[in-house]
Amino acid sequence: MKALAFEEISSLQNVRVKQIVRWRDRGSRDKDQVVLIEGYRALTRALAADYPIQELYFCPEMYQGENENELLGQCAQRGARLFRLAPQAFGKIAYRDRPEGLLGIGPQKRRGLQDLPAPGTKAFYLVAEGIEKPGNLGTMMRSADAVQVDALILCDSRTDLYNPNVVRASTGNLFTLPIAEASSAEAVAWLKKGGVSICAASPHAERLYFDVDMTGPVAVVVGSEQYGLSQKLLQAADECLRLPMLGEADSLNVSTASALLLYECLRQRMMRQGLRDANLH
Amino acid sequence: MKALAFEEISSLQNVRVKQIVRWRDRGSRDKDQVVLIEGYRALTRALAADYPIQELYFCPEMYQGENENELLGQCAQRGARLFRLAPQAFGKIAYRDRPEGLLGIGPQKRRGLQDLPAPGTKAFYLVAEGIEKPGNLGTMMRSADAVQVDALILCDSRTDLYNPNVVRASTGNLFTLPIAEASSAEAVAWLKKGGVSICAASPHAERLYFDVDMTGPVAVVVGSEQYGLSQKLLQAADECLRLPMLGEADSLNVSTASALLLYECLRQRMMRQGLRDANLH
Repeated sequence: MKALAFEEISSLQNVRVKQIVRWRDRGSRDKDQVVLIEGYRALTRALAADYPIQELYFCPEMYQGENENELLGQCAQRGARLFRLAPQAFGKIAYRDRPEGLLGIGPQKRRGLQDLPAPGTKAFYLVAEGIEKPGNLGTMMRSADAVQVDALILCDSRTDLYNPNVVRASTGNLFTLPIAEASSAEAVAWLKKGGVSICAASPHAERLYFDVDMTGPVAVVVGSEQYGLSQKLLQAADECLRLPMLGEADSLNVSTASALLLYECLRQRMMRQGLRDANLH
Repeated sequence: MKALAFEEISSLQNVRVKQIVRWRDRGSRDKDQVVLIEGYRALTRALAADYPIQELYFCPEMYQGENENELLGQCAQRGARLFRLAPQAFGKIAYRDRPEGLLGIGPQKRRGLQDLPAPGTKAFYLVAEGIEKPGNLGTMMRSADAVQVDALILCDSRTDLYNPNVVRASTGNLFTLPIAEASSAEAVAWLKKGGVSICAASPHAERLYFDVDMTGPVAVVVGSEQYGLSQKLLQAADECLRLPMLGEADSLNVSTASALLLYECLRQRMMRQGLRDANLH
């Protein structure tokens, strides 16, 4: 910890501790425009993406690994204030079951379609409409990062982008992934204007997902857990495709369905290019 | 509700209400060998699979659909005792955020490899080792049902099969899917004896998942969220395969990875058979 300046907090009644607990509530988070980033992995990804960490709370007694001090140093170097918490105090601010003694505070960033580059000839988007569950949204971010979509476009979202469970399930990819929020109508207009083929997942589609050519500019579009896609998006679709469902159910978990479509798109592109390894972009 | 006999419960202090609340705790559930099955979809799937429902608690004020009475009738016909609960009482026993006014009690069923038929020439298994999170396990069941694996084999499981979140995330497929519990060593021995190729997912594998022929008898094997696969399973693998990871992370959510491997297996089988529709089995 040489040369790192930090303040110490041991009281559960400390004003910052109480503030962080309040930030678990969406209203309070949105009012102050903050996001809580807990754990080594999420913080590392945020730093890698140059996401600003304004405050970092740490508790060495809870560390799980060996590189925490390096992470602290990076945060401090980029202007974060550091606070060393007694275990009891950290236990109070942690929202994860197994706290790792690291929790950062960053600003919320709201981006729209106007913040994205225009679609290119290999455009690749995931469009998610009306997603309700933070865990699903976060898991979708993790998969979208793995296939390196150009952006995740959230339409008429019913969950809070900065919910701690989104951060957790995304394993920090919330900070690395380009994300734009828009209405479904705006997204359709933007994609059409950019020459992007809208491939909508629907249990009622005739074509199977691996029968649809997704090697051109494409947006994979999935709908909410309860209701699926809106009529607006279904009618705007250039292709409707479905996943084989051989059992009782007629649908998969939405983050599962998203990953299947994204990876099929990636598989087709890799096959076409004769590529068998990582660097497609 | 004609002709259906039921008892009424309005008190929050009712002994059955208090018992069901206690059953949220694993120890209490295991001691009494019960599983809680909440919601229309899960109960319907349990009935479709002839899973016994011993007691059914209902609250018409909370119904979300129109077929609840039919479901009640089916439960009664198969010997379930029915209890009509006042909304306040149902609110107390419900574990879901949006209760649908239906909660059943069934017995736990523990099955081992000896309860499964011997592997056939088109054998298709999902083997999950050391899974920790109930939501992941349930989502894996949902995907495994969708591709109609012969069985889900749980090795050295770290989560309770009958956790309410497994039931919920599985959307009731916990009851429709053949599931066997075993140690990793037992599973390896059983699969080898049955001539089943073990295809293990590993970030360190050389071959990409779509480059491995999975049209023969195959077991797709995935490991725990935190640690991946054990050395025992990795060493027993006939094929190691990996998913392309183009972003920062080196792994996907385990239920996502499972679905990608299962569906790739299904895709290959459908392509080989020139099949483009549902009935593969």
